[in-house]
Amino acid sequence: MTTVLAGGVGAARFLSGLVQVVDPSTVTAIVNVGDDTVLHGLHISPDIDTVTYTLAGAINPDAGWGLRDETWKAMDMVAHYGGPSWFRLGDRDLGTHLYRTGRLSEGPSLTMVTAEIAQAWGLTMRLLPATNDRLRTMVTVADEGEIGFQDYFVGRQHSVPVTGLRFDGANNAQPAPGVLDAIERADVVVIAPSNPLVSISPVLAVRGIRAAVLAARARVVAISPIVAGVALKGPADRMLRELGHEASVVGVARLYAALASVLVIDEADATSAPEVEATGMRCIVVPTIMSSPEAAAALARATLAAV
Amino acid sequence: MTTVLAGGVGAARFLSGLVQVVDPSTVTAIVNVGDDTVLHGLHISPDIDTVTYTLAGAINPDAGWGLRDETWKAMDMVAHYGGPSWFRLGDRDLGTHLYRTGRLSEGPSLTMVTAEIAQAWGLTMRLLPATNDRLRTMVTVADEGEIGFQDYFVGRQHSVPVTGLRFDGANNAQPAPGVLDAIERADVVVIAPSNPLVSISPVLAVRGIRAAVLAARARVVAISPIVAGVALKGPADRMLRELGHEASVVGVARLYAALASVLVIDEADATSAPEVEATGMRCIVVPTIMSSPEAAAALARATLAAV
Repeated sequence: MTTVLAGGVGAARFLSGLVQVVDPSTVTAIVNVGDDTVLHGLHISPDIDTVTYTLAGAINPDAGWGLRDETWKAMDMVAHYGGPSWFRLGDRDLGTHLYRTGRLSEGPSLTMVTAEIAQAWGLTMRLLPATNDRLRTMVTVADEGEIGFQDYFVGRQHSVPVTGLRFDGANNAQPAPGVLDAIERADVVVIAPSNPLVSISPVLAVRGIRAAVLAARARVVAISPIVAGVALKGPADRMLRELGHEASVVGVARLYAALASVLVIDEADATSAPEVEATGMRCIVVPTIMSSPEAAAALARATLAAV
Repeated sequence: MTTVLAGGVGAARFLSGLVQVVDPSTVTAIVNVGDDTVLHGLHISPDIDTVTYTLAGAINPDAGWGLRDETWKAMDMVAHYGGPSWFRLGDRDLGTHLYRTGRLSEGPSLTMVTAEIAQAWGLTMRLLPATNDRLRTMVTVADEGEIGFQDYFVGRQHSVPVTGLRFDGANNAQPAPGVLDAIERADVVVIAPSNPLVSISPVLAVRGIRAAVLAARARVVAISPIVAGVALKGPADRMLRELGHEASVVGVARLYAALASVLVIDEADATSAPEVEATGMRCIVVPTIMSSPEAAAALARATLAAV
């Protein structure tokens, strides 16, 4: 059994490699819901959808989010009315949010609805939201104060300096059914190459999840999302610096040393391996850039072999 | 000033004639919201949308509802998940529901949001929901008991016998701002050729509206939606019979005699004029089938001339 703590794009690519090298039915992804938001009355779970669409082979390959072959007629109409159209929801993608919102209003949990959607796409791996309770990543940005994550990430295209993060609701959020068990019973727990601060931290902020990962440390492997000081996607590098961390594999190692016994870093960072090991983690150096399905599979194989 | 009590398709066609013969800024439509529903978390106002889209020249001319040049990608995806797709929401149409739902969640009333949408389409006539409070037409159908109006109308394609109607929320619903004033100050109040039982009755069921219409009776003209015993669109004829009324201009006259001083009927029903007048209404016989913009304008002209 393999359990993966997952954000969006990077985690989705890693998972698409992982399911090539192990039986997908032995894989559980525990997915960040701190990015979730309600827009136009619809419940949107961006990371869950990115993982689902990627594993289904239906992701928009150019954007890394949303569906292929997408059209934008509903959003064009919202814009016609002068409504908020900065968060682009494609027409096909809207079908997912309509289904999710309708089902949640009938009573089933996000766990159940996520499973229904994954099943409709033919996925056999298990996708679990970190929590079914309300959890919202709040971002304090210079000049503006605290705003919602999507207001920062999409609305401001993550281009404004961040001075603080808060996971609203974390104190009351319970792990979704199956989450703690999936960590405790996993042969390997992988911290996917996602943004440590806004993809992995909200998962760990849910009561009991950090403790479960700490208890499993010997079986936990993290993959650095930073390669040669740069985030391959998104603002992780800048955000690390803005919040007082080092935007490097060493900075990532310091964040994860208590939680994981191994850090997987890219060959571009090979010379940093001794500094990573100085944090108390073993360091594995392999190609980590998942530029093809084969590269993703190779990274998954190397990650599993690390424990 | 002309005020029109309005349902969906028939009222929309009448209004599109009316705005050809008077200054649109002198026209107010008070629109039924008993058909409103929440689906997939979205607030849907079918009659308001039908009137808006028709007046905007954007209606799907084949269906009589929804927008022209529509696609169905979101609904196809809902169906992919096994979700409810019997209520077909086109992608462009969804933009209207997204905008409305988002705005309502921010606080503005349905009156305000309806005006914003109408303005975006360039309408200068005034559209008012009958009420901003919750009002739901409930239909008792043989074998099944009470179901929501859209479950009857769309879900069962209005093909099951109706044994009762109830306007849930009517006891607590207040007229929307401007509604009573629009009736009191109108030179002519028109009861549009809409279904008397499920389009006009829910409007009249809102506290104070029936009394305002009764007080205005001398200035109130109704147009029969029944022509030669048949409803041109929808189930009005069968529903009238099922609920103990006569599916004829005389049956319509009996329903409206207390409220309106004039009934406009089609030439096909000319021989029924004496029976209509026996109910205490004056009877005007003109062509009422709005098969073209010119025919709708002529009907509007004849209706206004009746008072």
